[in-house]
Amino acid sequence: MTDIVSSQTDMKFSGFSCTSKGRALETAEYDPKTLKDLDVEIAISHCGICHSDIHLIDNDWGNSVYPFIPGHEIIGQVRALGRSVKHLNIGDRVGVGWQCGVCFICDLCTSGYENLCPDSQPTCVGRNGGYANGIRVDSRFAFPIPSALSSENAAPLLCGGITVYSPFREYDIKPKDKVAIVGVGGLGHLAVQFANAMGCEVTAISHSADKEDEAKSLGAHRFINSSNAFLMSQANDSFDFVLSTVSVDVDWQKCLDLLSPNGTLCFVGASPTQISVRLMDVIMGQKRVAGSGIGSPHRIKEMFSFAARHDIQSMTELYPIGQVNEALDRIREGKVRYRAVLEMR
Amino acid sequence: MTDIVSSQTDMKFSGFSCTSKGRALETAEYDPKTLKDLDVEIAISHCGICHSDIHLIDNDWGNSVYPFIPGHEIIGQVRALGRSVKHLNIGDRVGVGWQCGVCFICDLCTSGYENLCPDSQPTCVGRNGGYANGIRVDSRFAFPIPSALSSENAAPLLCGGITVYSPFREYDIKPKDKVAIVGVGGLGHLAVQFANAMGCEVTAISHSADKEDEAKSLGAHRFINSSNAFLMSQANDSFDFVLSTVSVDVDWQKCLDLLSPNGTLCFVGASPTQISVRLMDVIMGQKRVAGSGIGSPHRIKEMFSFAARHDIQSMTELYPIGQVNEALDRIREGKVRYRAVLEMR
Repeated sequence: MTDIVSSQTDMKFSGFSCTSKGRALETAEYDPKTLKDLDVEIAISHCGICHSDIHLIDNDWGNSVYPFIPGHEIIGQVRALGRSVKHLNIGDRVGVGWQCGVCFICDLCTSGYENLCPDSQPTCVGRNGGYANGIRVDSRFAFPIPSALSSENAAPLLCGGITVYSPFREYDIKPKDKVAIVGVGGLGHLAVQFANAMGCEVTAISHSADKEDEAKSLGAHRFINSSNAFLMSQANDSFDFVLSTVSVDVDWQKCLDLLSPNGTLCFVGASPTQISVRLMDVIMGQKRVAGSGIGSPHRIKEMFSFAARHDIQSMTELYPIGQVNEALDRIREGKVRYRAVLEMR
Repeated sequence: MTDIVSSQTDMKFSGFSCTSKGRALETAEYDPKTLKDLDVEIAISHCGICHSDIHLIDNDWGNSVYPFIPGHEIIGQVRALGRSVKHLNIGDRVGVGWQCGVCFICDLCTSGYENLCPDSQPTCVGRNGGYANGIRVDSRFAFPIPSALSSENAAPLLCGGITVYSPFREYDIKPKDKVAIVGVGGLGHLAVQFANAMGCEVTAISHSADKEDEAKSLGAHRFINSSNAFLMSQANDSFDFVLSTVSVDVDWQKCLDLLSPNGTLCFVGASPTQISVRLMDVIMGQKRVAGSGIGSPHRIKEMFSFAARHDIQSMTELYPIGQVNEALDRIREGKVRYRAVLEMR
């Protein structure tokens, strides 16, 4: 956390910091990092709370660096420009997601897969994120937000949205495809909307029967209660693409069974576990088990354009930044439908 | 085995039959099935022995129907035509592979994925295959063999060849791709040749150090002895596509680790087991675990054209049909390098 101690500006930033594993956040003042030639300084207006922030607060992945300001679904206005920034202007509304830096030179970066760069820099691991009034960040990871999208709506797209949009594009789902979304939550409610807008036949699968109406209002053509074994088995062999958005262990084989031959089962919900399925089913059905994490900068820009054209709406609960701990608690309890967004007021 | 008892012709066929699980084959005479309008009768000259035949003889998959004539890598000359057959002529040299019938009307069939049709009919399950002097079969599964390919060479391509060719095409490997072939055997020695001919950088991976020279002569640019843990770990994160051709359990995670981000691990060796890998690796690396079984008719024809243009050579051991049991024994002992072919002489 050299960012917190190094001083390169007169103005201190303030935000909510996590000082050790699992602790409630506390107000903190800190010096921002140096504004480099290609950086922008953003006056943050909103920041989504992604479940990954809680994983970082709890050090679930073993890579957290305390103290740190969480937050990687950042929306705000450009307040200062590094001297080499040509593609943004003071006052532009921009967003920053999970990733804030890469090497820009490896084959993955130069072929449009910056999200897979081995030197990927996360926005709030080893540096301070968006539960704050400002951030300085590489301008190549600050994406203009279309005017059609509200800031509250756009924030969750920066991580939750791209996480489900990118696999649809990377694994090339087609308008005729039958797509199942497993889990109607922070990721799933966006996935249903994207898949519908891509022209697909969309089935939402959830163990929460009370989500049926909502899933359908979001664009699901069908709903399956996953607690009903009969309905689930009836759905076997019927999907071209199954997107699993849940982050708990489920019956992987049951998910695979949902696929028609030549289908793809894709996981985006980060579960630190083994996946195990019958190999013969994969071979004989020419099936794929796939994964996807976030998305590259060009894909994020594409997603925002698509979301604006198709009126993709994050369902959000808005909290003033001072209530960040209450918001985190509600997420931990699974009560938020479906994304919490902090407002810096 | 109604084929054996029904009589529709004056001429009896003769071949080598498996009468019960695991038994040595015995000579048998039988009446061929009726020659239907779209059937051809083929005078068989050669038939490859695929490891799947041994699985059927041993009823490893629980679907064998005794007695039956094994054999599904069949080469011969068209001797009789059903009255509706327009695309073949008497005397044409043709080949028949694993599949001899489908529904022709489901979406998989009509979109070029006949190999995935739920009503797929295997050539030697519930009917008699190619360890014989003749077969009657749907002409749509009898593929003309380019004159550049010898019959002995062409036979193993009908199952072994298409099994490795199809996933390269289905999963769209590219000329710039780094491709690893795990296992240098009946499938692997063909996969190395195909991948080389497709312009890829090819690495053969085998636990048999003595196969290095051979693998390189077949077109592998590199060879890794999989028994050497250091060499294997050095190869981590370096392949766009890993094709596993082995049919025994291996360390699946080790295979996945070979993939660079955005890579695909594809299994074609039929192992009746679970595959288990770390889900986070699949997600963060945007990786795929995939399978593929045989290939569709249009892909088989494409493969033969490609094999002829690129001089793909099955390495074969030729046996007169009378020595079929000796040949089967040598395959069971893993001594055949790499495909045994029966000659009907």
